[in-house]
Amino acid sequence: MKFKINRQILLANLSKVSKAVNNKTPFLALTGILFNLTSEYLELIGSDNDLCIRCIINKEVNGDQVIEIEEVGSTVINEKIICEIVRKVESDMIEIDVMDNLAKIRSDKSIFSVNTIPAIDYPSIDFSLIGDSFSIDALELKNVFDQTLFASSDKEARPILTGLNVKCANNTLEFVATDTYRLSKKIIELSTSNEFNVTIPKSSLDELNKIIELGTMVQVYITEKKVIFDLEDCVVISRLISGTYPDTSRLIPNAFDQTLTLSTKDLLGAVDRASILLTERNNVVKLNMKDDEVFVSAKSMEVGYVVEKLNDYYYEGNPLMISFSARFLVEAVRALNSEEITLHFTGDMKPIILKSKTNPNLIELILPVRTYN
Amino acid sequence: MKFKINRQILLANLSKVSKAVNNKTPFLALTGILFNLTSEYLELIGSDNDLCIRCIINKEVNGDQVIEIEEVGSTVINEKIICEIVRKVESDMIEIDVMDNLAKIRSDKSIFSVNTIPAIDYPSIDFSLIGDSFSIDALELKNVFDQTLFASSDKEARPILTGLNVKCANNTLEFVATDTYRLSKKIIELSTSNEFNVTIPKSSLDELNKIIELGTMVQVYITEKKVIFDLEDCVVISRLISGTYPDTSRLIPNAFDQTLTLSTKDLLGAVDRASILLTERNNVVKLNMKDDEVFVSAKSMEVGYVVEKLNDYYYEGNPLMISFSARFLVEAVRALNSEEITLHFTGDMKPIILKSKTNPNLIELILPVRTYN
Repeated sequence: MKFKINRQILLANLSKVSKAVNNKTPFLALTGILFNLTSEYLELIGSDNDLCIRCIINKEVNGDQVIEIEEVGSTVINEKIICEIVRKVESDMIEIDVMDNLAKIRSDKSIFSVNTIPAIDYPSIDFSLIGDSFSIDALELKNVFDQTLFASSDKEARPILTGLNVKCANNTLEFVATDTYRLSKKIIELSTSNEFNVTIPKSSLDELNKIIELGTMVQVYITEKKVIFDLEDCVVISRLISGTYPDTSRLIPNAFDQTLTLSTKDLLGAVDRASILLTERNNVVKLNMKDDEVFVSAKSMEVGYVVEKLNDYYYEGNPLMISFSARFLVEAVRALNSEEITLHFTGDMKPIILKSKTNPNLIELILPVRTYN
Repeated sequence: MKFKINRQILLANLSKVSKAVNNKTPFLALTGILFNLTSEYLELIGSDNDLCIRCIINKEVNGDQVIEIEEVGSTVINEKIICEIVRKVESDMIEIDVMDNLAKIRSDKSIFSVNTIPAIDYPSIDFSLIGDSFSIDALELKNVFDQTLFASSDKEARPILTGLNVKCANNTLEFVATDTYRLSKKIIELSTSNEFNVTIPKSSLDELNKIIELGTMVQVYITEKKVIFDLEDCVVISRLISGTYPDTSRLIPNAFDQTLTLSTKDLLGAVDRASILLTERNNVVKLNMKDDEVFVSAKSMEVGYVVEKLNDYYYEGNPLMISFSARFLVEAVRALNSEEITLHFTGDMKPIILKSKTNPNLIELILPVRTYN
């Protein structure tokens, strides 16, 4: 394998495929990036077995030659090393020449000789675009990830909860993430009529979220075992999490006894200040709501207590005191990404529902904790 | 104790004294900041026993009243808590009211009730300005710290090397830091004729460096046990490290067999790229110098090797190959902070001396390591 390539274009594509590489894997070939050079294009693949990313760099882009191919071939080069080299050398073009498991990488000033791994050691990955398919705007997909993924679980004890559940039925896509203490649910209308119910690992979607480019359409393919995202310039495949996602449809009440509407900034400011006295383990703040006054308060035996008065709000319902995790509230409020927010209550031990007018298809839920005195 | 105070002024001064506070100390009073309110000013003190910082906020600043004093008194409030509160509340003024070991801290929207520590539990610290004294421009002192402190040792095995040695004789101040593998030495002319030889903990000077304000003069006082920095708006006291600092005067040769002069940017770029293949443990790069070519190279058994060609340089002397720690070179070169740099050599196992024309009073030294083949 021997070719010259535009450094910036190689770097941009290496950055994308490297998102799938886990340097700590014991499987040597997977610590590298597969280079596969044909007479027409360079294919780059990165994978950690759960997530696979493939980018294709064509020999010509918009009529400009970006690759000068001298000899086709394949090899695997350590991901960290090749990315650092391509990032740090100063030439416009880089020459890569692989012989006998040694890649010579030449720029204007440097010659790197890097040990490679034979391409035959790299697992074979099927990138064909099959399965139930729908297309979604890149921005809308990024919004789904930003507004839901944080609520999925970090704990491996219930693997199904470490993913994002995607359910499709009746021309509606429903995304749900929950760690049993809180829940995020986003609904999107679809024009196609598919039916599936799958759960995608949060870790895969976090990486996908970093490489989606705005202004494009993403084609999504669902099969029994995997989900495929076709991002125009690259293809991302993630395994699915097996198992049945819990039915969360009855968790969200439709009627509420109390509602509090207020400025997001005021609420976040009050909760942030109340949290000063709290620790990561004792993270509980209390909302004390009546017609004529609303307080946020927090208490720590060792440090002291704090009362924050909210000034501009609209409250409807009987007086209510309810306690909850400050962090969960802050994350849910941020996900709603709206200037004004409405909190709905049905009792001091019932779920708190957060909504905003600007994001009517998004529901954030957090469970209260038992109130201290 | 009861008073109102301008929030921004309190915050600025709390930030300074908090630099001396170590939250992990088992001595409860030292996790806090001492507030001492007289009828004329508020005194704030923070300390970790090795380093003590005192700031005075006068009742009036430039004719404006910044403190409204209702009742004088003293207390100690947890450093982290009081700094967070003063940073995060939104009022212009804050009221602090201490009774029965409980401080009520009021702003427009919040009331914090924070447990305090009796002022009597705080150690008594002598802030009187005594000892051999000299004055130095704040910028010059900051430069000394930035250019020398990194070379002092992190290892507690030889405590004296964890400090900056300051020697004064014959109207000259000499600052030396070394960890035995490298050395930084800065010389400053003085108009006063003091004689002392003391070693100040690097940790103290790192904190002092953060609060020195440019455009001022710093008055330094040296006694047998401590050094006092009078920064106009606050006083910083550090203990000294006891013991005799090693005599480093003969380490730096005066005559050299080889010199290499080149652009700092080129040298840092070449060493940075050569370091791509290295690890933190094997951090060795090699300089290979002849009249007509200069190379930087590095080798890792597992990964491969790299050769970097330098293009613009001036080399004088017989050919030389010398190996050294990439990190030590980079830190020394950065400390010289000059566009062009000169490296002086006297053999492949003798110290490398780095100098620049723009910083003639600064010498950086690094020891080579045995060359691999």
